[in-house]
Amino acid sequence: MKRRQFVGGLAAAVGAASCAGEKTDCASGTGQSAETFEWSCVTSWPPKYPGLGMAVENLAERIESASNGRLKIKVYGGGELVPAFEAFDAVSRGTVEMGHDASYYHKGKVDAAQFFTAVPFGLNYLELNGWFYYGGGLELWRELYEPFNIIPFPCGNTGVQMGGWFNREINSVDDLKGLKMRIPGLGGEVIRRAGATPVTMPGSEIFTSLQTGAIDATEWVGPYNDVSFGLHKAAKYYYYPGWQEPGAGLECMINTAAWASLPADLQAIVEISCQAITTDMMAEYTHGNAFALQQLVDDPDVEVRPFPDDVLRLLKSITHDIVRETAATDPMWDKIQKSYYAYMEKSTRNQRVTEFAYLRTRDL
Amino acid sequence: MKRRQFVGGLAAAVGAASCAGEKTDCASGTGQSAETFEWSCVTSWPPKYPGLGMAVENLAERIESASNGRLKIKVYGGGELVPAFEAFDAVSRGTVEMGHDASYYHKGKVDAAQFFTAVPFGLNYLELNGWFYYGGGLELWRELYEPFNIIPFPCGNTGVQMGGWFNREINSVDDLKGLKMRIPGLGGEVIRRAGATPVTMPGSEIFTSLQTGAIDATEWVGPYNDVSFGLHKAAKYYYYPGWQEPGAGLECMINTAAWASLPADLQAIVEISCQAITTDMMAEYTHGNAFALQQLVDDPDVEVRPFPDDVLRLLKSITHDIVRETAATDPMWDKIQKSYYAYMEKSTRNQRVTEFAYLRTRDL
Repeated sequence: MKRRQFVGGLAAAVGAASCAGEKTDCASGTGQSAETFEWSCVTSWPPKYPGLGMAVENLAERIESASNGRLKIKVYGGGELVPAFEAFDAVSRGTVEMGHDASYYHKGKVDAAQFFTAVPFGLNYLELNGWFYYGGGLELWRELYEPFNIIPFPCGNTGVQMGGWFNREINSVDDLKGLKMRIPGLGGEVIRRAGATPVTMPGSEIFTSLQTGAIDATEWVGPYNDVSFGLHKAAKYYYYPGWQEPGAGLECMINTAAWASLPADLQAIVEISCQAITTDMMAEYTHGNAFALQQLVDDPDVEVRPFPDDVLRLLKSITHDIVRETAATDPMWDKIQKSYYAYMEKSTRNQRVTEFAYLRTRDL
Repeated sequence: MKRRQFVGGLAAAVGAASCAGEKTDCASGTGQSAETFEWSCVTSWPPKYPGLGMAVENLAERIESASNGRLKIKVYGGGELVPAFEAFDAVSRGTVEMGHDASYYHKGKVDAAQFFTAVPFGLNYLELNGWFYYGGGLELWRELYEPFNIIPFPCGNTGVQMGGWFNREINSVDDLKGLKMRIPGLGGEVIRRAGATPVTMPGSEIFTSLQTGAIDATEWVGPYNDVSFGLHKAAKYYYYPGWQEPGAGLECMINTAAWASLPADLQAIVEISCQAITTDMMAEYTHGNAFALQQLVDDPDVEVRPFPDDVLRLLKSITHDIVRETAATDPMWDKIQKSYYAYMEKSTRNQRVTEFAYLRTRDL
């Protein structure tokens, strides 16, 4: 099996003045560069927000410990240094060295980045990582960001999200008509074609909008994050599953010149720490969601219920239409979607006989 | 939410002469220890074996890169330095500094270690990591190994395995009677009570035993590893799901004194690299299994089929009997199983509305 070269391969690909290509000078022995780096990392999250915001704090902590303080990273919440959703531009311009974000927020700049966070009815957590690290996905991601002077690293995942909070029942496809729902990205476009009106707004505005009736519904993440925003106090029906985000992957973005300035061992520490955060953040969500869901199930004012199958079938069919249409006009989208769906075709059968069959068995 | 302190907490707990407790001397600044370490790591795997064996090679590679060569780890396959299945003793005695293994191989020495690899009908990959990192599981594991001078680190996972290869059909619980099957650990004890005869043997002997009829059936891992052993050429029926191993976690064991000899930054590098390998190994299996399963489905001499529900129900019921009986005689088993099953009770509902509901939806 072809195995992606972990650290060395990337350093060489970047073609930077790092130690990777000059082993005799600095990468072969025991001498340590004493040079220190102080980086800024911008995000789209509220500071220390459960899951999303803690992951990047944990990343900075790991990097500082492993580098013995040679690489210190100061993390900024959304809006603290640059506005939320502008992390991509700040890293691209070199205003900051690093960003932690979800790639589908870069819609309009690099639409195809959608595939590296989550696509409706697409790859789940396990499959996304298989595709990134062993199926060519990460190479495509790096190719996509290269013109923007950004190197992306997978860094965290929320797992399967929830379908969202609704102030009215969804019993058929007709109930989507006229629904005003906060839902970003491709999922928003999907419900638009199903007759609803998608709205985008930062997380911080969702609760009030839902409570005042400015919107009828919202998706956010899952029980762990949704409870922290109090969404269960603003809507009654909590629908599953999160067809729109079946395992949202987060990204650590690093400015190409900043990356090239690091010695090879610090590059390795950053890359390894990002991969560690993927395990850690997924564990935090698995844990946090389990406990928060219990609270919601016990709440007499909340009803947890599945979307009807015909609604899910319609949304899936629309998703495939949009992916196909976009492929006709966006060559990178087309290149990436071909790799993504070829991967999913193979992995789907395996998921059926492993994860799915097992969870079914445990409930027998 | 209570968050486990990542690096510092452990160093303090070990009470070692590391830098964690002496920040002014060595952990706050930029000075680097030039001291180098050359460690040996023993395993139970064939050298560079897909998944299991590659994970520990990848671990050594990451640690060497991130430490700029200050910590070099030489990896030994099973039997190269010490016999397979004796890694635990070698690390405990300090014969070697490190081992990579599956904790359920230590049955007879520390029976309760079973819970940290996999328990039949127990936690899956996502849940096991949730329990380890946020639910108290890792603390229990460290408590269990402490008398043996070993610190365990979660380090890799195979995901849900397959039920195994059978030379006869399993259509009812009666078909288990008299079945001679290679299956280790708790799973073996379960099928014994169902009327079968469990056998243990190293992976290298399985193919011949199955082909000659010395055994009627075997479980091993999943398509990726099973194909590499040629098991599809020795049996016709490939059953799923792997009720006996729903997400087998691997371990990196480190001798307590060896750990204490490392400066704090190298400790951090080791701990972070182990957590990164969990992402990487799971990705390798997700990828490798998907492609190998395709090959098996296309093979006219192989039949991939599910176990009957009544067989699975019986095996589940026996598992719970054994867990309960063992708890009555082994206090650490009891302490760990209480934490494990309390966790599973919470997480099961969440898995139903997320991972399970999503995979079902994708197939609609």
